[in-house]
Amino acid sequence: MRREDRPRLVVVAGSTATAGIEGISAAGADADAMRHTPAADLEILAYGRPTGAPVVPVSPTGCPTPAIVTRAVRELLDLPLVAVDAGIARSTYAPTVDLGGRPGRDVREPPAVPDARKVFDAGREFGASLADSELLVGETVPGGTTTALGVLTALGHRPRVSSSLPDNPIELKREVVARGLEAAAVQPPVDDPIAAIHAVGDPVLAGLAGILVGATETGTPVTLAGGTQLVAAAALARAAGVSRRLALATTTYIAADDGAGLSAHAAELDLDLTVTDPGFGAVDHPAAEAYVAGEAKEGVGMGGALAVAERAEIPMARVHERVVALTDRLLSDRREAEA
Amino acid sequence: MRREDRPRLVVVAGSTATAGIEGISAAGADADAMRHTPAADLEILAYGRPTGAPVVPVSPTGCPTPAIVTRAVRELLDLPLVAVDAGIARSTYAPTVDLGGRPGRDVREPPAVPDARKVFDAGREFGASLADSELLVGETVPGGTTTALGVLTALGHRPRVSSSLPDNPIELKREVVARGLEAAAVQPPVDDPIAAIHAVGDPVLAGLAGILVGATETGTPVTLAGGTQLVAAAALARAAGVSRRLALATTTYIAADDGAGLSAHAAELDLDLTVTDPGFGAVDHPAAEAYVAGEAKEGVGMGGALAVAERAEIPMARVHERVVALTDRLLSDRREAEA
Repeated sequence: MRREDRPRLVVVAGSTATAGIEGISAAGADADAMRHTPAADLEILAYGRPTGAPVVPVSPTGCPTPAIVTRAVRELLDLPLVAVDAGIARSTYAPTVDLGGRPGRDVREPPAVPDARKVFDAGREFGASLADSELLVGETVPGGTTTALGVLTALGHRPRVSSSLPDNPIELKREVVARGLEAAAVQPPVDDPIAAIHAVGDPVLAGLAGILVGATETGTPVTLAGGTQLVAAAALARAAGVSRRLALATTTYIAADDGAGLSAHAAELDLDLTVTDPGFGAVDHPAAEAYVAGEAKEGVGMGGALAVAERAEIPMARVHERVVALTDRLLSDRREAEA
Repeated sequence: MRREDRPRLVVVAGSTATAGIEGISAAGADADAMRHTPAADLEILAYGRPTGAPVVPVSPTGCPTPAIVTRAVRELLDLPLVAVDAGIARSTYAPTVDLGGRPGRDVREPPAVPDARKVFDAGREFGASLADSELLVGETVPGGTTTALGVLTALGHRPRVSSSLPDNPIELKREVVARGLEAAAVQPPVDDPIAAIHAVGDPVLAGLAGILVGATETGTPVTLAGGTQLVAAAALARAAGVSRRLALATTTYIAADDGAGLSAHAAELDLDLTVTDPGFGAVDHPAAEAYVAGEAKEGVGMGGALAVAERAEIPMARVHERVVALTDRLLSDRREAEA
């Protein structure tokens, strides 16, 4: 792939106290570790392994973060990376662009994102500054499918979202969002995307929406790399007046997940959908098996990265090789840390 | 160059009010523009041009920043970059690792770096975290040769430094440093590197020294990429007890500058010296002529980047082509901004 054709990977990271609700997220071994997941994910993207974050981001069952897959593709294609801090709870050694945000609050106690306007505006200016390359925009925020459900509900969409858990705790998420909307006295549909994020979103959604609006203002091509949260970001961008076609690249795990309602959302939001099969069924490794069994599914730009690898005609077997090598090193770091 | 052989470019950026002293620095068109130079340099390294900083970093005569040369080599070799914010005066859209520092004060009014210990410690921890690749460590801090003179003097070295101006205002620098040392009641030689930085250094020297100490603690190979300021960082690392051999890669413009006393410093500090000729005499471009006439000389990792290009057997003509293309775009951005 020629240097000038490589997309720039933009990963927006942040935290929400919503992730601490029992049973909501699998993006970390436990609630404490989950607070470090965005920092660790960014370090994996930047360096190939966590270098400062004191945790190895795996699910409670040991399934490693999708950041590994994105990193593998990044290594194979030398994709440029910009990590964006929209409000992460723990510091990271990954270089970041700081949008000036703070971690989000529990959506049951709105406002979930008191500084939503500020983060959106900072994201918009930053998005407008990135005028040279196609952008591949992803996210890392534990608890983010619940806040995505929140803004989709607030904006009046039919609320369907995915999960990092094999059994989507969708009823719990709906209940959490309903409590938040009621406490915020928000009656869907609301027109104002900032109001939706402010009430029941998270800082990453504020940053993503801002970046989408800014990038489309300057005519920069954008591919949304991910599942439910990127659908929510697209809905926010539409609510903010973005009329250009947008692309969404995700994995078959999301597309096959009835709960996520991906094709309905894509049609409703006018998103060009690319679905890539990671082909993990062919990989003899416990981590691949966990994905096949329905864990993790997507995140940290994974679906978009795989789509770019396919576009660049990188054989999936080469991606797998690198995923396995990175995973084994990650798990060996974890054993060392625990020893 | 194989991916695993590529060094990681680590550029530490910061500001010091010392740069505002009339006649001290050429790292910016004027005093106001100079405050944005570190932010703009990092954006050039990250994106190829300033994307958020409202200035184009050129000297008062229009000579462009050496960041252009480093970026050219980075593009040719896909060098990974980590930009480090040790205390810059203006925000940047380049992703940075934040050492938590603040811009330094005028060395005539010590302490020049009130938080020197904190920044050094943060740099040390960060340096220790970067254990995988060789590091190529550079800097961007307008006024930095004066603060380098400050710490070299404080540590008891014979104070010889370079300049971004063709005629080195060395007497002015000595006077400024002497006033600072007197006001701080510091009697050279001092043993404590932190005390030297605290009195008459700048935040970048605190970050550089910390990173050197941390990286050598974990056995990571380090090449200092630059001139006078990197000599000062090496002197600080030696004062902090680093006994391992260190490499310094710089340009012939610094090596040919009697004032910089490079070989004497290298011998005294046990530095393996690599000197690369940018060959700009062969380039028909006003920017190249300014370098040949003695402007800029070095900075933002330029000498180290050229040494890596030579090691990777990239023909210097390819580097020149890209430098010219990047410079022309930079100057055209500048004309647009002024129109």
